[in-house]
Amino acid sequence: MKEFDFIRRYLHRSQADADVLIGIGDDAAVIRPRAGYDLCFSSDMLLKDRHFFGDVAPADLAYKVLAVNISDMAAMGASPRWALLGAGLPQLQEDWLAEFCGSLFVLAQHFGITLIGGDTTKGDLVFNVTIVGELPQGRALRRDAAQAGDDVWVSGQLGLAAAALHHHWHTFALPDAVFDCCERARLRPEPRVALGQALLPVAHAAQDVSDGLAQDLDHILQASGVGAEVFADNVPTLPQLHDVLDKTALYGCVLAGGDDYELVFTAPRSCRSAVAEAGRASATPVTRIGRITQDRGRLNILNANGMPVALASLGFNHFE
Amino acid sequence: MKEFDFIRRYLHRSQADADVLIGIGDDAAVIRPRAGYDLCFSSDMLLKDRHFFGDVAPADLAYKVLAVNISDMAAMGASPRWALLGAGLPQLQEDWLAEFCGSLFVLAQHFGITLIGGDTTKGDLVFNVTIVGELPQGRALRRDAAQAGDDVWVSGQLGLAAAALHHHWHTFALPDAVFDCCERARLRPEPRVALGQALLPVAHAAQDVSDGLAQDLDHILQASGVGAEVFADNVPTLPQLHDVLDKTALYGCVLAGGDDYELVFTAPRSCRSAVAEAGRASATPVTRIGRITQDRGRLNILNANGMPVALASLGFNHFE
Repeated sequence: MKEFDFIRRYLHRSQADADVLIGIGDDAAVIRPRAGYDLCFSSDMLLKDRHFFGDVAPADLAYKVLAVNISDMAAMGASPRWALLGAGLPQLQEDWLAEFCGSLFVLAQHFGITLIGGDTTKGDLVFNVTIVGELPQGRALRRDAAQAGDDVWVSGQLGLAAAALHHHWHTFALPDAVFDCCERARLRPEPRVALGQALLPVAHAAQDVSDGLAQDLDHILQASGVGAEVFADNVPTLPQLHDVLDKTALYGCVLAGGDDYELVFTAPRSCRSAVAEAGRASATPVTRIGRITQDRGRLNILNANGMPVALASLGFNHFE
Repeated sequence: MKEFDFIRRYLHRSQADADVLIGIGDDAAVIRPRAGYDLCFSSDMLLKDRHFFGDVAPADLAYKVLAVNISDMAAMGASPRWALLGAGLPQLQEDWLAEFCGSLFVLAQHFGITLIGGDTTKGDLVFNVTIVGELPQGRALRRDAAQAGDDVWVSGQLGLAAAALHHHWHTFALPDAVFDCCERARLRPEPRVALGQALLPVAHAAQDVSDGLAQDLDHILQASGVGAEVFADNVPTLPQLHDVLDKTALYGCVLAGGDDYELVFTAPRSCRSAVAEAGRASATPVTRIGRITQDRGRLNILNANGMPVALASLGFNHFE
């Protein structure tokens, strides 16, 4: 099968999108931006053994490759609209491709995303998705807009993906039922697009948790020139993890694990009920975990006794 | 050096671009589309040993990674505006990065491109650039617009990059001066942005020559439902290659070599002087090499005696 047959068969699906003037199959795609909207761009590269195991099921792989990009749109409060997929593939194996592309298009359609381009080439497994979203003009959940006095919130539960990963690495072993929950969170993170949009009129700053809560919240602090105080035991996680992990392991997963793809965001105290309502409207759990301080760049994580929590690492380092 | 230090130091340069509301450093970049313009998107992935040698100079590598994407914009008649860079890097080596980024920004600035995002991660050398360009609304040089009776044209000279590659592979040896010319064409292809824009009111169909003239012209034929007759000896190449290569090797490089990043395009006979003028206005040589026929999907390449030229391959197969 040649590259062009592959593209034709698997990627060149008819997708109804009136704003796409030229889709896959030319040198470039052409879209017509809608009046009143800004466009939002993000790009993530995923490499075998770095971001996923080589034996991952193709349907799970495709889901994650796209989902982590959708999560960046959620963190801006944007609606994902279009995506371009770059893929290095060791060979063109039809079953594998059919499963990969099937899963990719299910997720894309769920979020109303049209695949408008990409590039496939022979190589070790590597993927790069660029995603393009729409934002009402002048609106965005930025990193640099947190203000002293804001509450700090997170969506969903944190630390599950990291716990599953540690189970794979044999750092510790999880009971089967707990592992299944954590593994599902690792493989199928749910991008918080609806929450991000609901937060546009409410939140000050937001970011998705991909490299670990401490590190990602720190980006907000650095960009905004503020500090934060976070209550470690308020950070929501899978309740069973409290029973099976000691505090050090639990804090490591929840506060510095990464791969969560939940949102961490700040909002004024006066907006607590509005935040709760945004959570309800988007059917997304939201939990208040701390507050923004004037203590520039200082992230203070406290345990139930009000003592500082020491972390071995703030989170994932892309070059370690 | 951590990833975020790297991003800050090398990629987060201040670039004056009033249409970029949020640049590198947030979850996603935000741009404000200009009224009256469509946006054009393309993405190319380049892998070590597949698209470049592992010991390539970082300045040459950066140039090419971006240039091949700019070439896709040229082939649409679009102005490149923004780019996102995904990079897998074995390590963060400062000298290497400084040279790579320096070269990248020189080329970006030359074409008025702002780097608005990207992702870096540890891995085998791999790059993915997504480029975004502007087109006057409703205009684009498409692949599917060639008409029977059109002339077929190419820009610049073809086959040089392929000749250099064969020299590297020891298929044949080029004299030093010839190799230098060809190697420069291979490492530093000149994206034909000005020509593409000048052709917007003139050309019917266009595409850039990345996988070999025969294969890339064939995409126009397939998409447009037409055929073509091309005169092999009219296809411009480096004159010295006629002296040092036999006909089979020469035709292989010129007609099926690839990596040229010239434009192949069709235009009505009545526009010959307008095409010549577009070439002059953009300081780009343009040469008429054949014509579009009604012979659907049939590409007829003829030598000086009017006999069909047989090619061992139509061009680069991304999965061979």
